[in-house]
Amino acid sequence: MGRYFAAVDIGATKTTVSVSSRRGIAARVYQLTRKSGDRAAVPRQVDFLIGFACAQAGIDSRRIAAVGISTASPFLKSDGFLALAAPNICGGLGQKLEGIDNDWTEVPLERELSGRYPRVQIANDCVSAAVAERTFGAGRGEDDLLYVTWSTGIGGGAFVDGHLLTGKNDNALHLGHIVMNYHDDGEPLCGCGGRAHLEALVSGPAIARDYGAPPAEVFRRCRSGEPAATALIHRVAMIMATGLYNAVALLDSRVIIVGGSVSRNWDLLEPLLAEEFYHGFPALTGGVEFRRSQLDRYLGDVAGLSLVMPESWIAEWQKREPWRRAPETTVLEPDMS
Amino acid sequence: MGRYFAAVDIGATKTTVSVSSRRGIAARVYQLTRKSGDRAAVPRQVDFLIGFACAQAGIDSRRIAAVGISTASPFLKSDGFLALAAPNICGGLGQKLEGIDNDWTEVPLERELSGRYPRVQIANDCVSAAVAERTFGAGRGEDDLLYVTWSTGIGGGAFVDGHLLTGKNDNALHLGHIVMNYHDDGEPLCGCGGRAHLEALVSGPAIARDYGAPPAEVFRRCRSGEPAATALIHRVAMIMATGLYNAVALLDSRVIIVGGSVSRNWDLLEPLLAEEFYHGFPALTGGVEFRRSQLDRYLGDVAGLSLVMPESWIAEWQKREPWRRAPETTVLEPDMS
Repeated sequence: MGRYFAAVDIGATKTTVSVSSRRGIAARVYQLTRKSGDRAAVPRQVDFLIGFACAQAGIDSRRIAAVGISTASPFLKSDGFLALAAPNICGGLGQKLEGIDNDWTEVPLERELSGRYPRVQIANDCVSAAVAERTFGAGRGEDDLLYVTWSTGIGGGAFVDGHLLTGKNDNALHLGHIVMNYHDDGEPLCGCGGRAHLEALVSGPAIARDYGAPPAEVFRRCRSGEPAATALIHRVAMIMATGLYNAVALLDSRVIIVGGSVSRNWDLLEPLLAEEFYHGFPALTGGVEFRRSQLDRYLGDVAGLSLVMPESWIAEWQKREPWRRAPETTVLEPDMS
Repeated sequence: MGRYFAAVDIGATKTTVSVSSRRGIAARVYQLTRKSGDRAAVPRQVDFLIGFACAQAGIDSRRIAAVGISTASPFLKSDGFLALAAPNICGGLGQKLEGIDNDWTEVPLERELSGRYPRVQIANDCVSAAVAERTFGAGRGEDDLLYVTWSTGIGGGAFVDGHLLTGKNDNALHLGHIVMNYHDDGEPLCGCGGRAHLEALVSGPAIARDYGAPPAEVFRRCRSGEPAATALIHRVAMIMATGLYNAVALLDSRVIIVGGSVSRNWDLLEPLLAEEFYHGFPALTGGVEFRRSQLDRYLGDVAGLSLVMPESWIAEWQKREPWRRAPETTVLEPDMS
């Protein structure tokens, strides 16, 4: 009777859970992330979805050996347990974002779930993506690796000397929130309240704001040579390259892996990133390599799983890449629990 | 017959070597750093100075169990050996700095010295300072620690999760070379050739350049309420706080230790740093603590030594702090070798 592992992906919009055996992904379910009720609503939802996915896979949930959770963050530590303090989930953090009908200041994720499963491992979604890319994707065998997501938000995860950086509250690599201009006058406001943050300058919503059209349309126009779209894409690539240079100046990374929806325009972006990046201090930029994420579309399953997967499974998964043959997702109605 | 350890501090101006037994520092010598001859001149000088210090201490240099080297950097790796590629030592790097009469592009430090002693450990001077502060100074017991020197240059060293960050070429934490403004027009040029680098904005020479007087004089005038000096010190503290915030956004540090000559004005600077720093994203800045370096004046001995000191000595050194009772330094003429 083999062991199963649950992979959980908690986003601001939806939460996905899959359960996997050594052979591959057995079932996957998703539901809109719960943002009302008491502050344990999200962990209860995760627990329910794991149970549902187990039922779909035809297994008893007691066969789940560990749960790997890849989630929106930042975190805080509450009596030693990791809790979410994500402004796009917790309505009590003062950000007053739309569609959040709660006054939570934290979600006690680890405290609620750690007693229910033999092992629960939680990481920011970009940190877990870095683990996944190093285990199964574009960063195999790399000890000095920076993973960056370039999407609705900007975030990162990094290994330095083979060590995964987490930090005092597991908030390492909040790359989207570095300040890109110390003169902040006239710079755009970030969702977190800061100014001139990398995320406020180059994320998908920032591109849309600066052009007045969705990012996909801006890229399409850039490809057709439209000057304003071209100038904007050059500008965001320059700023992103400077942010990546700053991260490399601190982490001395060898490989930078870029994922996320904006990075799907890699053919356009990579030469622009490289041109700006290699202008930086040569002793720090020499020998750095850019790569496109290999797991981008599969991170919902693979990121959380890679936090808890047994060593003995890895070689087989690397070879067979079972995440490419995952089952259809079962979509649950928001009120189902 | 007890073991001895050598601590080497290679700066752009001078190189200091001390040798220590379990009881304390037995001898210390210094000489201007050699910048002419062939590219092995610096490692030969280090070897000579270790021998000289051993002679001063009255011991055979074969009793040196290990050599810890704290040095100006950046590094590169040459056939797996760490070499210096520091613009203020190597004249062949294209920077054409004054007083450098050589065309070296690298100094083969590890290759030349590793065969001569049982163990040679090399780190950037700020990285070794981070090790020293964590072992003996203001960072004892801290797993998430950022050390920053605020002096002629700006540099850093960090532990994350108890792991000392080094990176692919041991160049991690080049904090002085992060870009603080992506619009680089009108921003000052850094010694490395970049613009708007933290070092070019807040280092001692940057303060002197912006005011037209040495930093000590600027601080004196700031203390007496002179408006231009006060405005400049507020400005550099704001920029430094933003640089430290950027590092914390990536490293999730708990303690920031500041050393270096500029930081000797800690009573003035700390409140200014704190005021700006805690304006940053609260989820990332909450729980961070600033501390002044405890070892600042002693790093020349303690930084290199802390890279190689046996575990079994540490408790005794922590208790007795023998670096405070070090012998006089023997100053060698530049041509002596």
